[in-house]
Amino acid sequence: MKIGRGIESGGTAVWFASDDGSQFHTWDFESRKKGNPLDIKQILAPVQPTKIVAVGLNYRDHARELGLEVPLEPILFLKPSSSVIGPGDEICYPSQSTRLDYEAELAVVISRRCRNIKQEHAKDYILGYTCFNDVTARDLQIKDGQWTRAKSFDTFSPIGPWIVTDLEDPHNLAVSARLNSEVKQSSNTSNLIFNVYELISFISMIMTLEMGDVIATGTPSGIGPMEPGDSIQVEIEGIGVLQNKVS
Amino acid sequence: MKIGRGIESGGTAVWFASDDGSQFHTWDFESRKKGNPLDIKQILAPVQPTKIVAVGLNYRDHARELGLEVPLEPILFLKPSSSVIGPGDEICYPSQSTRLDYEAELAVVISRRCRNIKQEHAKDYILGYTCFNDVTARDLQIKDGQWTRAKSFDTFSPIGPWIVTDLEDPHNLAVSARLNSEVKQSSNTSNLIFNVYELISFISMIMTLEMGDVIATGTPSGIGPMEPGDSIQVEIEGIGVLQNKVS
Repeated sequence: MKIGRGIESGGTAVWFASDDGSQFHTWDFESRKKGNPLDIKQILAPVQPTKIVAVGLNYRDHARELGLEVPLEPILFLKPSSSVIGPGDEICYPSQSTRLDYEAELAVVISRRCRNIKQEHAKDYILGYTCFNDVTARDLQIKDGQWTRAKSFDTFSPIGPWIVTDLEDPHNLAVSARLNSEVKQSSNTSNLIFNVYELISFISMIMTLEMGDVIATGTPSGIGPMEPGDSIQVEIEGIGVLQNKVS
Repeated sequence: MKIGRGIESGGTAVWFASDDGSQFHTWDFESRKKGNPLDIKQILAPVQPTKIVAVGLNYRDHARELGLEVPLEPILFLKPSSSVIGPGDEICYPSQSTRLDYEAELAVVISRRCRNIKQEHAKDYILGYTCFNDVTARDLQIKDGQWTRAKSFDTFSPIGPWIVTDLEDPHNLAVSARLNSEVKQSSNTSNLIFNVYELISFISMIMTLEMGDVIATGTPSGIGPMEPGDSIQVEIEGIGVLQNKVS
């Protein structure tokens, strides 16, 4: 099942449910029940997280690409909620940067407040999965050493198009990025160094996770620059395509 | 004027206003008007920010202490809202660390949503100032390179005791930290490398700031470790004392 948020024909933002991503129904978040058909005019970001916890260097192929050792523990960073945009929204190229990169990632959405979760219980706190683009001003990332500024600009966290709640195995999904239809990243979540359950456990031992919080699980090899006018698509098997343009 | 949040005798969390920090009155946030006397049993964190934007290495004396160059631009990092605690709440020493440091800081609280603010207009977006302790697991900060994990544990953002809305000059305030009554940090905001208005401008050119968001302006020299049982006080001239115990 895909659940998400959109603007219906009357102009109101609503939750929706969909089986195929083209026909939409109302969705009652409390009762978790699908209702009447909906005419969705625009799909919005499926969540407004209190925080996005992202993981650096979490694909074997990406670590190799950068010539870096596989880390012994996840390297975390935060992206602010103010950076979230939805499918179709524009990524704004900031004047402070001259190198703006895409990073295709599997995102995990947390279902309810939790802390100190063991790996074997992590599944109980997952609402579902969606696509994420960890947009990064690569030049500022290198200049600052700390990654925060480079990853925190408004519009730097495209997410969507919806949350898939019934993915059977999050650790065997094709992940790709296409820049103007050209495949730039192509990997599989089987290459994750720390898997989704390990990440939830590791992160929740540090900080309380809230409903709707997002864990961005890291990007595979093939990262590269975007220019104004470019179209960037993040696709994850079983989820769908998150498309944004750079302006 | 000091405004903040507290639990009144009936057990409800309310906004308060106070002139002297010992006698409290109701405070209507919308009309900005002081009302009847209040019996405050416990003072809470004065804000629940959507984000805390913190600045590394922003005191000349702290840069000298670490043997580092004065940075040409502010180095930013984020602390999650889940790490916020109020005055008197306990800082929990995490099992993952063996070196937990205090960092006394002046915090700026944003009054309304803003972005791309020029320095000369920054004052218009400041609700007021409060004390902040940027608690840091120093060993994890060094180990990770990225500062996020080291600074994001639950309870690592003590803030308070209230917001002072009428500070005349934020750039001439004594800032100190006392560990079990012994002065460990003693400096003045005149030693800030990037001042409050420069920081608001710099940060708002990157990310939209929301009402209640907090900018932690960096810590002076004298940082050092705390142990379970210790009491740590951050005091800022014209604001007050933020006290917490380590557990």
